Amino acid sequence: MSTKPLRPLTGPMRWQEVDVLEYKRDENARFSNVTRQVLFDEPSLACQLRYFEVAAGGYTTLERHEHAHAVVIEHGRGRCLVGDRVYDVAEHDLVHVPPMTWHQFRAGADQPLGFLCLVNATRDRPQTPTDEELARLQENPAIAAFIAE
Amino acid sequence: MSTKPLRPLTGPMRWQEVDVLEYKRDENARFSNVTRQVLFDEPSLACQLRYFEVAAGGYTTLERHEHAHAVVIEHGRGRCLVGDRVYDVAEHDLVHVPPMTWHQFRAGADQPLGFLCLVNATRDRPQTPTDEELARLQENPAIAAFIAE
Repeated sequence: MSTKPLRPLTGPMRWQEVDVLEYKRDENARFSNVTRQVLFDEPSLACQLRYFEVAAGGYTTLERHEHAHAVVIEHGRGRCLVGDRVYDVAEHDLVHVPPMTWHQFRAGADQPLGFLCLVNATRDRPQTPTDEELARLQENPAIAAFIAE
Repeated sequence: MSTKPLRPLTGPMRWQEVDVLEYKRDENARFSNVTRQVLFDEPSLACQLRYFEVAAGGYTTLERHEHAHAVVIEHGRGRCLVGDRVYDVAEHDLVHVPPMTWHQFRAGADQPLGFLCLVNATRDRPQTPTDEELARLQENPAIAAFIAE
């Protein structure tokens, strides 16, 4: 089915003809309270645009991959790990995750975090850290505290 | 210069390290009161993400091209022509402009219209209508009224 020219908002961060999907199907990936909505996935576009919403207290998988992310925060507040730093993020902030960079998004304790995430349509699968890689990340106290929350 | 992991909002729809640019340089293109900000233009991404803001009463160029647009309205209200229909648009609505489809965005008379626009990094140049194509578009009274405003 071809995408309609207009798909209006039907509720808070819900759109006409856009399904609310589970975040991912990988049983080994650790995450909590995240939904995924694919807003644009067109054969004529080399990228996909998705909207992820992390409920209050939730978090995405700690992962890295060869493909990059371009993120626009759309809703709520939270924090994200990109590489070796944790950043506070709020509505309309821009986040760039370069290739092969560990990253994770966490909603605030009492508010959700919703963001647009742009990726190449053709991309590699995410990697989760090995025990050794995790131990190395945890040598940084700020990262250790962030991923332990 | 590589893109920083976080570029926060510095004002209403203005970002750290993102320049506010003129909409386009084509002297033959008719438009009014539009700015362009390139939010993401990364070698690792096959698409660019731009933010356009049309001031109250302003409009983008009536054009078409082989590349597609994926648009998310971010701010304000307005209307857009996509193909043979004019749509009202408001914050967070999704607009898809397929290849070779005439389109134009107009802000409301008393409020701006700001939107994210996703395009392939490699793309063709926009075409504006010939007198004949314009006459054909104007055969539809709704389109004639929209583009005449």
